[in-house]
Amino acid sequence: MTEPVKRRRGPGRPRQDEVEEGPGTQERIRLAARSEFAARGYDKTSVRGVAKAAGVDPALVHHYFGSKDDLFAAAIELSMEPAMVVPAILGEGPDGIGERLARYFLGIWENPVTRAPLLAVIRSALTHEAAASVLRRIVLRRVLERVAADLDVPDPTFRAELAASHMVGIAILRYVVQVEPLASADPDDIVALVAPTLQRYLTEE
Amino acid sequence: MTEPVKRRRGPGRPRQDEVEEGPGTQERIRLAARSEFAARGYDKTSVRGVAKAAGVDPALVHHYFGSKDDLFAAAIELSMEPAMVVPAILGEGPDGIGERLARYFLGIWENPVTRAPLLAVIRSALTHEAAASVLRRIVLRRVLERVAADLDVPDPTFRAELAASHMVGIAILRYVVQVEPLASADPDDIVALVAPTLQRYLTEE
Repeated sequence: MTEPVKRRRGPGRPRQDEVEEGPGTQERIRLAARSEFAARGYDKTSVRGVAKAAGVDPALVHHYFGSKDDLFAAAIELSMEPAMVVPAILGEGPDGIGERLARYFLGIWENPVTRAPLLAVIRSALTHEAAASVLRRIVLRRVLERVAADLDVPDPTFRAELAASHMVGIAILRYVVQVEPLASADPDDIVALVAPTLQRYLTEE
Repeated sequence: MTEPVKRRRGPGRPRQDEVEEGPGTQERIRLAARSEFAARGYDKTSVRGVAKAAGVDPALVHHYFGSKDDLFAAAIELSMEPAMVVPAILGEGPDGIGERLARYFLGIWENPVTRAPLLAVIRSALTHEAAASVLRRIVLRRVLERVAADLDVPDPTFRAELAASHMVGIAILRYVVQVEPLASADPDDIVALVAPTLQRYLTEE
């Protein structure tokens, strides 16, 4: 009270000496958020924990990303980045679109680095409505609608969702539940059977 | 110590006046377990809580079902009962098998009474390896292998798993993540597109 200058720092405002501004800071927080949500799940992840992992003050996390749900949305966006490439894949034209898509998705899931955060997103969405809501808004707006815009079929978003549902289901049975022989199947064998399904959903009336 | 007769009751042994034997008791415990796991999830469900919900002594639950994982297995078996009908559906022959299967699964998912415990099983499997292991053993042994035995295709279990993966993925995107338009789509429209996929997986070389 006697030193108003020091009291400039409110609860949402980092101390000047802790602020690490710059283009790298937000990205570092985003990466930390993705790791924390992936490792701990939605419930057990806190803004404070993410701040610690990123080596910044919690107030800075609040400053850049707002609430925990906003932070989760940012983590999901980062985790979904591989899916953002999908419109480009589809943009190459309808020939072989099913195989390209199946191969691309399996590639993402086969790589533990990209698989872990995606599984974390699915887990969180299945157990928390707030997480499901974020996924719904981001997946729908960022991926499915863009994919649908390129498709020349009736109900293109619906078709894109059916294709996505198959890839999500395969990921769950193969990598989480790990039913055999699917869990140990050669990716090529999966692509060979799944590609015609995606091809039909995305290109045939 | 002075009355050894009373000390017959060990920790795993219910008091005689609390024992409610009979064909209905095990079933009541199983139903209570399914409800508790569905409502609370794997982590927060306890043998004690299931006993309370069933109105029996915890020792009786232990006596009939062993550990929490065994109890979870029993709850999953009960939740998966609708899936046990699948071999019968497939037994009707290959014609229209895809449509029958798609329609049957959507019927189960559309009904909140059968949907809730199935979603609970998927949720638990995604978040707990013990639950995934139970699901893996039960689903594989009880459903997929029986289905596969009736199929006249190469790698029949693999084919059955691909079909199952699609239905699981649709359930997740439609009922949990609730992406539109899939979430509000008419079941007939889903069946119309998905049936040929299942038909191909289960009948074509």
